[in-house]
Amino acid sequence: MVQIDLNCDMGESFGRYTIGADDHIISSITSANIACGFHAGDPATMRKSVRIALDQSVSIGAHPGLDDLSGFGRRNMSITPQEVYDIVVYQIGALHGFVLAEGAVLNHVKPHGALYNMAAVNAKLAEAIAEAVYKINPELILYGLSGSELIKAGKKLGLKTANEVFADRTYQEDGTLTPRIRENALIKNEGDAVAQVLRMVKEQTVFSTTGIEVPIKADTICIHGDGDHSVEFARKIHNVLRENGVEVRSL
Amino acid sequence: MVQIDLNCDMGESFGRYTIGADDHIISSITSANIACGFHAGDPATMRKSVRIALDQSVSIGAHPGLDDLSGFGRRNMSITPQEVYDIVVYQIGALHGFVLAEGAVLNHVKPHGALYNMAAVNAKLAEAIAEAVYKINPELILYGLSGSELIKAGKKLGLKTANEVFADRTYQEDGTLTPRIRENALIKNEGDAVAQVLRMVKEQTVFSTTGIEVPIKADTICIHGDGDHSVEFARKIHNVLRENGVEVRSL
Amino acid sequence: MVQIDLNCDMGESFGRYTIGADDHIISSITSANIACGFHAGDPATMRKSVRIALDQSVSIGAHPGLDDLSGFGRRNMSITPQEVYDIVVYQIGALHGFVLAEGAVLNHVKPHGALYNMAAVNAKLAEAIAEAVYKINPELILYGLSGSELIKAGKKLGLKTANEVFADRTYQEDGTLTPRIRENALIKNEGDAVAQVLRMVKEQTVFSTTGIEVPIKADTICIHGDGDHSVEFARKIHNVLRENGVEVRSL
Amino acid sequence: MVQIDLNCDMGESFGRYTIGADDHIISSITSANIACGFHAGDPATMRKSVRIALDQSVSIGAHPGLDDLSGFGRRNMSITPQEVYDIVVYQIGALHGFVLAEGAVLNHVKPHGALYNMAAVNAKLAEAIAEAVYKINPELILYGLSGSELIKAGKKLGLKTANEVFADRTYQEDGTLTPRIRENALIKNEGDAVAQVLRMVKEQTVFSTTGIEVPIKADTICIHGDGDHSVEFARKIHNVLRENGVEVRSL
Repeated sequence: MVQIDLNCDMGESFGRYTIGADDHIISSITSANIACGFHAGDPATMRKSVRIALDQSVSIGAHPGLDDLSGFGRRNMSITPQEVYDIVVYQIGALHGFVLAEGAVLNHVKPHGALYNMAAVNAKLAEAIAEAVYKINPELILYGLSGSELIKAGKKLGLKTANEVFADRTYQEDGTLTPRIRENALIKNEGDAVAQVLRMVKEQTVFSTTGIEVPIKADTICIHGDGDHSVEFARKIHNVLRENGVEVRSL
Repeated sequence: MVQIDLNCDMGESFGRYTIGADDHIISSITSANIACGFHAGDPATMRKSVRIALDQSVSIGAHPGLDDLSGFGRRNMSITPQEVYDIVVYQIGALHGFVLAEGAVLNHVKPHGALYNMAAVNAKLAEAIAEAVYKINPELILYGLSGSELIKAGKKLGLKTANEVFADRTYQEDGTLTPRIRENALIKNEGDAVAQVLRMVKEQTVFSTTGIEVPIKADTICIHGDGDHSVEFARKIHNVLRENGVEVRSL
Repeated sequence: MVQIDLNCDMGESFGRYTIGADDHIISSITSANIACGFHAGDPATMRKSVRIALDQSVSIGAHPGLDDLSGFGRRNMSITPQEVYDIVVYQIGALHGFVLAEGAVLNHVKPHGALYNMAAVNAKLAEAIAEAVYKINPELILYGLSGSELIKAGKKLGLKTANEVFADRTYQEDGTLTPRIRENALIKNEGDAVAQVLRMVKEQTVFSTTGIEVPIKADTICIHGDGDHSVEFARKIHNVLRENGVEVRSL
Repeated sequence: MVQIDLNCDMGESFGRYTIGADDHIISSITSANIACGFHAGDPATMRKSVRIALDQSVSIGAHPGLDDLSGFGRRNMSITPQEVYDIVVYQIGALHGFVLAEGAVLNHVKPHGALYNMAAVNAKLAEAIAEAVYKINPELILYGLSGSELIKAGKKLGLKTANEVFADRTYQEDGTLTPRIRENALIKNEGDAVAQVLRMVKEQTVFSTTGIEVPIKADTICIHGDGDHSVEFARKIHNVLRENGVEVRSL
């Protein structure tokens, strides 16, 4: 039976500030990537997020980001592999603290925002992240953009990896995402997004913006948790997948 | 044979800023309390500090503090037990990440500055810290001011505890430290400090500022790492203890 | 004709995080206290907030707070008068930068949260704030709790002061606010809140929780901007005051 | 008579952390660039730095940097012109607060580290900085790398500008600095550095690494304040310039 994981970034609130509808989206996903206090999140939010995930039997992952709270970790920085290694170890460790305190298990690591994007194309940074994950626990699953340098770096170290695909992003002929600056980067029609997901999961292919069917490896689908209709969309994706004979489960 | 642990705060540098002579003092101590990025320290410093401690076979502890880098964690804050629990879990976890990455073992936890002082007298905050330590790993040793609420809270949960005493601070008749605002709070004469340490370790008593011999529990001695003569003083304390038949070793 | 100022805290968003309904509440108030990046706010938010205030001809004030973003500046800290002076000068200056850049004028300063509360009762901290305001510009108006140490400190230096009262808080026989830990600290009935405001503005008295009519100085009313009905309530207060012959204008 | 300004970055300490020998170098320079709390510095340090500069009649400038304390503002970031404008207005304003509080005058603005480097080559970021400076006060002098985009942006707005040259950096045939990654980027011999300074100031030329004499505009010389011999070197440069008939004075 075909299986797929649905992952969503969570725990991105900070202090008195709230982002996301974690309590509602949690029931539609199978893996939660919990922010670790650098780009978003704080100790109280991390504790609560771990509990929410446990209550719903959702797998718990660390979601480390750049040390840039004011930019939400979305601004690329000239950061060395050593610096990347250090901030990733720190953040995985911090979340692991809450996981241990709840008697739970840490399942995976998915870098956030600019760190995710840089690690998709920069082999040195990708290797630094993979090494940080591996040295903390070689059983952790490394999430990264499907077919990216991060996935390659994880495999090279012997880590389990999860190729991530997107429901609402378009793809180019070489299998990479259409850059966000392009007009056609986003899929705005919900039906199209659902169809793309089904195809990626069941056929392991995607239609490029030029109409070519390209192979793509899809282990996990990124569900956005902060849009206006994100909760409904997550539920819809989940249901359509099950109705089409796909088992939705964590890795 | 009488035994004693010598502990020192370490890893309190930050970014381009350096504090302490960690590389030099490490050879005189048996336990290192490594800052975790809130009051001081950063991921790179934590990684290096863990390595320095491992290289010298010094026990590694987490040294969590208040989230107050500009005040070095020395300013009391109105913080709830829940907030204390959360920041302590976070920081122990973060350091634990580096300890895991080096294949090492985390030995103890000692709160820093204002958090240490508040937990010495406030039972609720003390219990929050003890619970954070216990839930991460009940084998961790909790360091606290000798006879303080923190020690009591640790014992109540079944944690191993380490009663900390000071070489260069004077004591009052009730066994508590003379407040720093008093003129006679500090022992400035090195010989007096050494004599006090020897008495505390071998007799488990201390002379109060009023000349009364008071019982005191001494499991570990706090060595300051950032003064002008701290390296020499640490070495002296270490040597005098050994010359007097005391085994200097971690707990 | 009786006059009153309606002030509201604004610009408390941060990075990707949004708090408050600044765009909507602005039309009901006459003075905006803009957060300066310590307890809340950031450079982009400050720029936009200054523009919003200018567009609506609302007076612009600095709203400095403690350096505690994760606690939203609401946790008391053991901070020295010198430290208070420094952080207040810094924050007023920062907001003043945006005011200068827009060719506008800075009108007042109102401390935030724990800084406001500590300065209401601690004369030394109050004097430090007043001095910071005075040295930057002796024409600035200092906002503080009605009758508080902060108002006294401002007057002593020759600053114009604004005694602030609250629509939704109850008062004790000595004219001070009922502490929030008491059950009857808040006025939940909107009609009661409006009636209290009218009395404070027109009679300069307030009924204590024990039913005694106490004199109170009311130069400005604090309007909360972040509750569920805050926009409607602000409009209501504004309208009722005008219908009762009170001129609503900044100081 | 030929004139030159000697500027130095100052006030880069933070909290309990100290960097630089501000008290000693101040007597050899004519312009102080004071850090504003983003890449380094804090309110207390800014207050003291302004006083130190005033006491020695040294011109006071703001030294804004990226919001990256852990990287000391030296890591390039993908930051928009609007974000640059906002953080520069904020930081100039903050320092201006202390300048106002001391009854002094703000003289100039020099961006720090990565912000300085990015603005040297990126016209959009350069224009954002120039606009921030201009809108706060069109009389402020904008410091930038000699001949850089930042200087051009300042001139375009009608700002006074200061072309900065370096004593200890080598230059290429096109008048730009040899990148730091090259082996010959730094002048290690003190005599060579002094000779280069004299030539730049008196002849407005510099010898490239390839031995070509290239024209260069030198209004101000950057003096480093944090090296081992920086205090002695600053004094030497100052003295040699005067002995060679150059008037050392601020702009």
